[in-house]
Amino acid sequence: MRLNDTVVALATPSGAGAIAVIRVSGPDAIKMLSPLFKAKSSKNIQDQPSHTLHLGNLVDGERILDEVLISIFHGPRSYTGENTIEISCHGSPYIQQEIIQLLVRKGARTAEAGEFTLRAFLNGKMDLSQAEAVADLISSENKASHQLAMQQMRGGFSNEIQKLRQELLDFASLIELELDFAEEDVEFANREQFKDLVRKIQQVLKRLIDSFATGNVIKNGIPVAIIGEPNVGKSTLLNALLNEERAIVSEIAGTTRDTIEDEISIGGIGFRFIDTAGIRETQDVIEGLGIKKTFEKINQAQVVMYLVDGSQLAVENGRTADQMNIEIEKIKNQFPQKPLIIVVNKIDRLTNAALKGLKESFGGTPGSHLILLSAKENLGIDELQAKLLGFVNTGALQNNNTIVTNSRHYSALLGALDEMNRVQEGLNNNLSGDLLAIDIRQALYHFGEITGEVTNDELLGNIFANFCIGK
Amino acid sequence: MRLNDTVVALATPSGAGAIAVIRVSGPDAIKMLSPLFKAKSSKNIQDQPSHTLHLGNLVDGERILDEVLISIFHGPRSYTGENTIEISCHGSPYIQQEIIQLLVRKGARTAEAGEFTLRAFLNGKMDLSQAEAVADLISSENKASHQLAMQQMRGGFSNEIQKLRQELLDFASLIELELDFAEEDVEFANREQFKDLVRKIQQVLKRLIDSFATGNVIKNGIPVAIIGEPNVGKSTLLNALLNEERAIVSEIAGTTRDTIEDEISIGGIGFRFIDTAGIRETQDVIEGLGIKKTFEKINQAQVVMYLVDGSQLAVENGRTADQMNIEIEKIKNQFPQKPLIIVVNKIDRLTNAALKGLKESFGGTPGSHLILLSAKENLGIDELQAKLLGFVNTGALQNNNTIVTNSRHYSALLGALDEMNRVQEGLNNNLSGDLLAIDIRQALYHFGEITGEVTNDELLGNIFANFCIGK
Repeated sequence: MRLNDTVVALATPSGAGAIAVIRVSGPDAIKMLSPLFKAKSSKNIQDQPSHTLHLGNLVDGERILDEVLISIFHGPRSYTGENTIEISCHGSPYIQQEIIQLLVRKGARTAEAGEFTLRAFLNGKMDLSQAEAVADLISSENKASHQLAMQQMRGGFSNEIQKLRQELLDFASLIELELDFAEEDVEFANREQFKDLVRKIQQVLKRLIDSFATGNVIKNGIPVAIIGEPNVGKSTLLNALLNEERAIVSEIAGTTRDTIEDEISIGGIGFRFIDTAGIRETQDVIEGLGIKKTFEKINQAQVVMYLVDGSQLAVENGRTADQMNIEIEKIKNQFPQKPLIIVVNKIDRLTNAALKGLKESFGGTPGSHLILLSAKENLGIDELQAKLLGFVNTGALQNNNTIVTNSRHYSALLGALDEMNRVQEGLNNNLSGDLLAIDIRQALYHFGEITGEVTNDELLGNIFANFCIGK
Repeated sequence: MRLNDTVVALATPSGAGAIAVIRVSGPDAIKMLSPLFKAKSSKNIQDQPSHTLHLGNLVDGERILDEVLISIFHGPRSYTGENTIEISCHGSPYIQQEIIQLLVRKGARTAEAGEFTLRAFLNGKMDLSQAEAVADLISSENKASHQLAMQQMRGGFSNEIQKLRQELLDFASLIELELDFAEEDVEFANREQFKDLVRKIQQVLKRLIDSFATGNVIKNGIPVAIIGEPNVGKSTLLNALLNEERAIVSEIAGTTRDTIEDEISIGGIGFRFIDTAGIRETQDVIEGLGIKKTFEKINQAQVVMYLVDGSQLAVENGRTADQMNIEIEKIKNQFPQKPLIIVVNKIDRLTNAALKGLKESFGGTPGSHLILLSAKENLGIDELQAKLLGFVNTGALQNNNTIVTNSRHYSALLGALDEMNRVQEGLNNNLSGDLLAIDIRQALYHFGEITGEVTNDELLGNIFANFCIGK
């Protein structure tokens, strides 16, 4: 890892805007900028205190590149812990490039993805899980994932891990001390106290590991499969849900042409709606390869939503509620584990009598939930939102519990639990101290992986490669 | 114009990035942020000096929205001249929106397009032509347009106008003073000196008006029509030109399906290449309506570039140089006013003998320029670039002359010149002072339009509506 050079990158999104910010970090950052910046006040920025702002011209010899605002940060009081200059320039992509090229000519290197945060980590400004939270924070798209990332960035997760690691380390030291006195057969480490600690650590690890399912769902949105025939009003329903919350929508073309995913935020929780046209074909077609993929998608979903056109359910339109109940039964049997919401749409087209009859005769099967609404008229949307939110265990989130969202942390936690189980087994079997110590060291290794006390260049490379440039 | 409220807007481009900057400006900006910002140092930002940076948490009650860096500017030492806070937050679109919404709940109004610059203008931080230059600067895509915008933003243009206006104003005052002493028949304003001034102003105005053609070309790129049959290597040539300079390329779908425009920066000057497929059809088709549009495009061009496949020019491939000379003669006759560059491409496919023969026999017509190159092999590209640059009168630019790029300024200058001509006529006809004064006032009005001394809400609305939000 080269760290003693000075790097430069655009920190704001690319494109044109009112302003753009270019970040320069490294031991020479301030010295490098000094001859290139002519302050309005004629002061030399090298003589200026940290955390001050200066207006002036950025010049390349005689040529004025731009009128800019310079922020000065003296290491270690900066994001990276190094001397840092932030240049606030006019937001033209041309100017941004000219400034970056000027700095490169003056000896700066263009920063690699995540290099500013990598430097912050290597300079001890944050641990590895906090650094990872920075990337999560930037990509957070709703209240829940944002809250999780903030919590992790502020050390919530690593504090807990750190504390356990320290307690375990203390015992490990005592046990290793015993090895030095092996001939005297002493026990510095109280075995009963140690058993208690191991149990406590196991419990915490299990809770953290279990939280991963919730964390993953919060980070990526809760997958909801929507099934139903064409023209029952799926798009209208998604738009109605969307208007309620004015949330972020993205359309991801799925693996098959017919699988479209839409992400919608409801009550601050992301939901990923998977549109699965084709599921309602005949039994014969269901066996087809394309439909198999749809089924795989439904299997990934945490909730299945079955959309029905209410106006077709009225007896006069040919299909009876009883017939529909049979079809729903079939679906329920296919996905017995999934909560099923039956959404009867277009109720605005029904007479009051028909609506009443529908409610009485058409209740779906046990374990399913019935919602009557009109997406077009915005009737009953609140109820559907409440129902969807009901499936989310946000209790953990509200109680500020630590939730694991990172799969790297998840596998380190699994590894740590594995070793702790081995330590427990060893304790129960009165294993000798030297053998116990090996398993404890392994557990400590896994803890250290999370916070970055144990690390290597390849791991760091993998983590920071996913960052955006300029962070 | 409401100006005593506090406005907020995202100042950096929208989208995800390492950081984003949110600008808050208005009398209450600092007071509004104070309860929402918990500084690491526990200091209240209301007590902090201007031009300082503060790290801390942005909070909404108990909820931490983000860890942010706050820049404090006390009016009038800010861009707008008002109290201003810049919030540097994590670059997630979700966080950006949450912060802006929080500020709106606390009483800020979302800024309209260009409102920060409008406020800067209304608070006397810059004149109108400087404000307009800010927008030009942000949209500048090459060295020349950037330099012009910088010059204008730094007051180069308005300084010159301001000076003339002041001199004219002084004379106008003297002439108006004479009116108070009309009965005494005095002349405070020396008519000969005044004639000299009018001549001087006329000269400056003419120069500025003439510079508009150059300015327009620099701002929008020099239009170059490329004509030639399909497959002679137009795209390859454009890419070769592009690679030389790594410049900005944009594809603008033209008015007809066949007219594609490509912008390329060569030596810091923007060139807009207009691809005019279809021009080389038979005489009959040329009369068609679609081709008429192509001809209109060529008429807008400042340079016509005729691309020929050199490998077809060799005698063995059927078409002789003599035949081509005849065709080129026809093109030259159609656009007698335009510089014509004949570019013979694919010379890598020719034998040395064929190349020599070509150079001797195929010179085009008088007034045309011959360039032999291979776009694919990157041979001769330098020569073409030098030739294109040769058509640009950049002398004015290099001499730091004032160049008019704004059509609003252009028409104000035309109006001012018109009035100055009338003043001159009046002076020559010994027109009475009161009549002279009317024309002088009209000329002063046009000068004032440029710098913003004369303005109205509608004009300001039109100008700032073209700005981006956040500037």
